[in-house]
Amino acid sequence: MLRVLRVNVSTDVISFDPVPKAWERVAGRALIARVLLDEVPPECDPCGPHNKLIFAPGVLVGQMVSSCDRLSIGGKSPLTGGVKESNCGGSTGLHIVWLGLKAILVEGSPAAGAALRLLCIGPDSAHFEECSDVLGLGVHETTQRLRSRFGTKVSIAMIGPAGEMRLRGAGIMHLDKDGNPGRISARGAMGVLMAAKGLKAVIIDPGKTRRPALADAPRHNAARKLYVKALAEHPQTSKIYPEYGTASIVDMCNGFGAIPTRNFSNGRFEHAEKINGDAFHDLMVGRGGEGDPTHACMAGCTIQCSNIYADVNGKQIVSPVEYETIGLVGSNLGISEPDMIAHLNYQMNDLGLDTIETGAALGVAAEAGLMEWGDGLRAMQLMEEVRKGTALGRVIGNGAKLAGEVLGVQRVPVVKGQAISAYDPRAIKGTGVTYATSPQGADHTAGLTLRMPVDHLKPEGQVAASRTAQIRMAGFDSLGACIFGAFGFNLAPTTIQDLVNGQHGWDVGADYLTELGKATIDLEREFNRRAGFTPADDRLPEWMTLEALAPNNTVFDVPAAEMDAIYNW
Amino acid sequence: MLRVLRVNVSTDVISFDPVPKAWERVAGRALIARVLLDEVPPECDPCGPHNKLIFAPGVLVGQMVSSCDRLSIGGKSPLTGGVKESNCGGSTGLHIVWLGLKAILVEGSPAAGAALRLLCIGPDSAHFEECSDVLGLGVHETTQRLRSRFGTKVSIAMIGPAGEMRLRGAGIMHLDKDGNPGRISARGAMGVLMAAKGLKAVIIDPGKTRRPALADAPRHNAARKLYVKALAEHPQTSKIYPEYGTASIVDMCNGFGAIPTRNFSNGRFEHAEKINGDAFHDLMVGRGGEGDPTHACMAGCTIQCSNIYADVNGKQIVSPVEYETIGLVGSNLGISEPDMIAHLNYQMNDLGLDTIETGAALGVAAEAGLMEWGDGLRAMQLMEEVRKGTALGRVIGNGAKLAGEVLGVQRVPVVKGQAISAYDPRAIKGTGVTYATSPQGADHTAGLTLRMPVDHLKPEGQVAASRTAQIRMAGFDSLGACIFGAFGFNLAPTTIQDLVNGQHGWDVGADYLTELGKATIDLEREFNRRAGFTPADDRLPEWMTLEALAPNNTVFDVPAAEMDAIYNW
Repeated sequence: MLRVLRVNVSTDVISFDPVPKAWERVAGRALIARVLLDEVPPECDPCGPHNKLIFAPGVLVGQMVSSCDRLSIGGKSPLTGGVKESNCGGSTGLHIVWLGLKAILVEGSPAAGAALRLLCIGPDSAHFEECSDVLGLGVHETTQRLRSRFGTKVSIAMIGPAGEMRLRGAGIMHLDKDGNPGRISARGAMGVLMAAKGLKAVIIDPGKTRRPALADAPRHNAARKLYVKALAEHPQTSKIYPEYGTASIVDMCNGFGAIPTRNFSNGRFEHAEKINGDAFHDLMVGRGGEGDPTHACMAGCTIQCSNIYADVNGKQIVSPVEYETIGLVGSNLGISEPDMIAHLNYQMNDLGLDTIETGAALGVAAEAGLMEWGDGLRAMQLMEEVRKGTALGRVIGNGAKLAGEVLGVQRVPVVKGQAISAYDPRAIKGTGVTYATSPQGADHTAGLTLRMPVDHLKPEGQVAASRTAQIRMAGFDSLGACIFGAFGFNLAPTTIQDLVNGQHGWDVGADYLTELGKATIDLEREFNRRAGFTPADDRLPEWMTLEALAPNNTVFDVPAAEMDAIYNW
Repeated sequence: MLRVLRVNVSTDVISFDPVPKAWERVAGRALIARVLLDEVPPECDPCGPHNKLIFAPGVLVGQMVSSCDRLSIGGKSPLTGGVKESNCGGSTGLHIVWLGLKAILVEGSPAAGAALRLLCIGPDSAHFEECSDVLGLGVHETTQRLRSRFGTKVSIAMIGPAGEMRLRGAGIMHLDKDGNPGRISARGAMGVLMAAKGLKAVIIDPGKTRRPALADAPRHNAARKLYVKALAEHPQTSKIYPEYGTASIVDMCNGFGAIPTRNFSNGRFEHAEKINGDAFHDLMVGRGGEGDPTHACMAGCTIQCSNIYADVNGKQIVSPVEYETIGLVGSNLGISEPDMIAHLNYQMNDLGLDTIETGAALGVAAEAGLMEWGDGLRAMQLMEEVRKGTALGRVIGNGAKLAGEVLGVQRVPVVKGQAISAYDPRAIKGTGVTYATSPQGADHTAGLTLRMPVDHLKPEGQVAASRTAQIRMAGFDSLGACIFGAFGFNLAPTTIQDLVNGQHGWDVGADYLTELGKATIDLEREFNRRAGFTPADDRLPEWMTLEALAPNNTVFDVPAAEMDAIYNW
């Protein structure tokens, strides 16, 4: 029987509660929205006592089915002011389910000025511990110290210096299956929310617990086999992602004229071939040593799109380097050296910063004259400013919107206060619709239309494409499934219901994913509506409708009225 | 026949147009809202080409009736994102009417990177001029240069370095009747909007024009006499304000436990007697020289609440020092030396900054550890940071909300992004209702309840008090009447309709002020609604509902549902 762990940081009361009836069949992203609607006053201060920090593994989590052990972390976002679900791989979600927990809810506010603490959760127990030895430390050093204190079997969700300083670019970092803190619940400033709850890290010790019993093992196993076979048969998940990872998207996006270049002033980067999938692959293979283009972030994953990027001596710089980072920290800053991108990625990870938000903020800073395009060393200096907590560092660490406001820059790529990711919406307009309308704020993972059969440059058909993508992603996020699992589920669509029913003994049907996705978005929209969001928030920045993007010279021109109807199911 | 001057800074086309029928009987604050609804897309980027910078003198302006020559400047606010009317004394409004202009509308956007210019308006003509000699200069030096270039008869509306840097604390500075740039359209970042329109200053040369003919001179003159007599009979406008100015409010607010002290952490300042009306009065009188406690900002004013504050040698430091500045830059920062407050006031004026917004931002900065309470020299240094445009300076110059976000401070006194003025809403709860609900964002001038017959500490009756105050103030702002004119109008209420009808030949009735006020607020609310505002925006910051204010130990507890009904006339 699953339980809900409630941790009140005002009173320090910790309790393992039964799962409320209404929450039994929701999990992951859907559960975040449900909890927010049920328990969090929508108008509350995101950093105040009424907000909650919610950990909710998806429906399928716990069984180590490939790409299906993802964790949703959420609450009312300190960045967007709306509903937030921030999704990550790694081992945290898996271990939460192993401990028999449906969700962890951190509630209340610590005493003013109290030092951050650890929340340690094991089988049937949880307690706080002090952690003065890791306060202010970077994520990598913190990981080492916590692993030597708690052992190497624990999973850890932690914030870095950026979160401790409550910078709105701060996410929550997690360990991958090898204990490397390279996975992140990146978006929406969940690191700030964790700091507001007085926590430096949550330690999950699975102890001797293992995956929960299946309700219908034969059905589950058969579906798993079919699904994994489909993943193995699709070239994207059996060849391209394993070998080239998400960096393979560089050429695709550059070809579409949609890769952010110099603060979204161009959609094509003249040095794209230096930072594309081939370039990264060849460096990781050619340099040998610790570098590896094929790496799994979660234990059961067969796709292994992650990677380990090593320097010329074969020594790991960072793991992984992903497309979004290449786009926002590379081309968006005019930087074309893979090593520099990797070093910046490492610094941002160590600070506990979202590379999308921070890359976008650096782009805005460059536009304001604070760095030259392509000057990676200056970008590194600016990361040091963040670490020191200088005013300039805080401005950049707080993300693109604030950086634009402080520095007086008008060309700021954000929606609902959150930075647009590495697909310029003027050249991939369906994803622009997602950025504009998603209750989550600008986020490609809320509904990427890159591979949809639509002319990305025309306004027609984009709302329909985004709708389809958003429904599917809200479904996958609630399942705990990685977006790349979709390649398998698309080839073997019945496996979704069989996996769910086989695991839980439910009776979901063929439309489950679609229904789940729609229901999730409906809940999220309702929370945002109560929090004060209106259609005026479902817009791209005005300059993207006025300033044509080279090389296609298109503006974003999907009609607002069409976007406003996107959720009329 | 009045005309509308339209100035398009995209095309440089300037035209003197007839007044649209629907605008004929609206002026001042009401006209700002009307123009916004008629011509500005509510969702537009405040700094983009679709927003308009609007100058609109009030209904009564032009006749030099005491306290009735005020100018409304407005547009969609870069600070709040909503409707904004920012009201000022001085000579600008008077001269606009003398030139036969109902309003000046600055439209479009200048070419990217173009240098700021001057807009020079004279009788029947207007043109742009370059002004490289004053770019980057403070308001005082700019004033000197522009007056030597254009003569001492012109009025000038200008921005300082803060506006040029697009810092959201920036207002628009104006000359008083003596040519001193001490009047400011302070609130809502109108200085940023002016910069976004590519203007450093607007020069109004009245030439040989004088006050327009009256439609019914006997009626107007009789009413004026009655009204001025009433002002002369009320002790507040004949004795207290002339002698002590608005500094007289210090004791009153301190007595109520409502003076902002150390970033709104206390409502009583232990050194209030060093910065109260008596203290300032005695220094201005005792030091002699240029100091003067009795000074008029507008030519016809009989109240003369303004002042000239001089140093120990009798040399003017700044004119005027007002209560809001004393509250936000004095007690709110723990500063109890009048000279220091005056010097900071001068610096903020010179930068073209709103002292309320900037004082509140400094309070937040002090809370974050960037200055010690009471350390005025450090506050002066921080103003130098603003002048230099450093990251820290930009953070503070952008106002309290941004400062709080960047510096990670939760106790930030803002509503709709705009700083609360010098009446803590937990101890003057009716004014708290005004802060929360006014379409203008937190602003005491939108409806101060300080003198209303209500127990300021109880939640009961506050919505009614605020409603009454808001209606009256929206009316006065549309008339172009100073809030202090109310002391006269209250004693001689028929003079309002007689002044209006006598001036314009209209036929407004006894309910005119109330109708005008309600209609104005209705227009403003409608613009904000279309811009995306909801009841969730009509709230004080959550911490003010949780953190009790000494010495009364009250929180803000007027029920939200009651506030949401405030405009159900």
